[in-house]
Amino acid sequence: MPSVLDRTMLALADPTRRAILQRLAAGEARVTELARPFPISLNSVSKHIRMLERAQLVRRRRAGREHLLSLDPAPLDAAAAWLEAQRSFWNARLDALERELRREPEEDGP
Amino acid sequence: MPSVLDRTMLALADPTRRAILQRLAAGEARVTELARPFPISLNSVSKHIRMLERAQLVRRRRAGREHLLSLDPAPLDAAAAWLEAQRSFWNARLDALERELRREPEEDGP
Repeated sequence: MPSVLDRTMLALADPTRRAILQRLAAGEARVTELARPFPISLNSVSKHIRMLERAQLVRRRRAGREHLLSLDPAPLDAAAAWLEAQRSFWNARLDALERELRREPEEDGP
Repeated sequence: MPSVLDRTMLALADPTRRAILQRLAAGEARVTELARPFPISLNSVSKHIRMLERAQLVRRRRAGREHLLSLDPAPLDAAAAWLEAQRSFWNARLDALERELRREPEEDGP
């Protein structure tokens, strides 16, 4: 079973889906509005949106006959946190390496 | 053609691949070493590693008969930057919304 983080990363692995999320970061939108800038069918855009809904990145509400979509940024925070953790782990390792390199000449020094 | 960012996100959409990257953030490792903690075949781990190499997240160097793998964190920075951009865009929108809400009562006030 894919985790929320797995689904989030998979959802972000496509330029159309990333562009949809970018648009929704600016506010709620209808499906037809979202589809307009893309040179693909409305059906293809709908599939991307369903994938974003399964990843819990997009919420849908009905207002009469309209389907309004909005961003749920919470899973993006978890993805950012994972990346940030790797980065600080990696930087800590580089700092340790640098300290190691600075120490060595001293041992040969006066 | 998938972009570097597409490949990075796809590479991160799997818990085994994320764990391999986490291990490599601590330093270079041999394939057999990397495979040890996982309850899957060496062949499956090798496939995950090849995918990480295609995403340019992992580099391989040969030392005699050994294959040594190391992390290349540059694509992670690009992924983190994308997420950070969405977050600041989203936060700017929330701030604007808050200012809007604060302004409204004043209009009805004294």
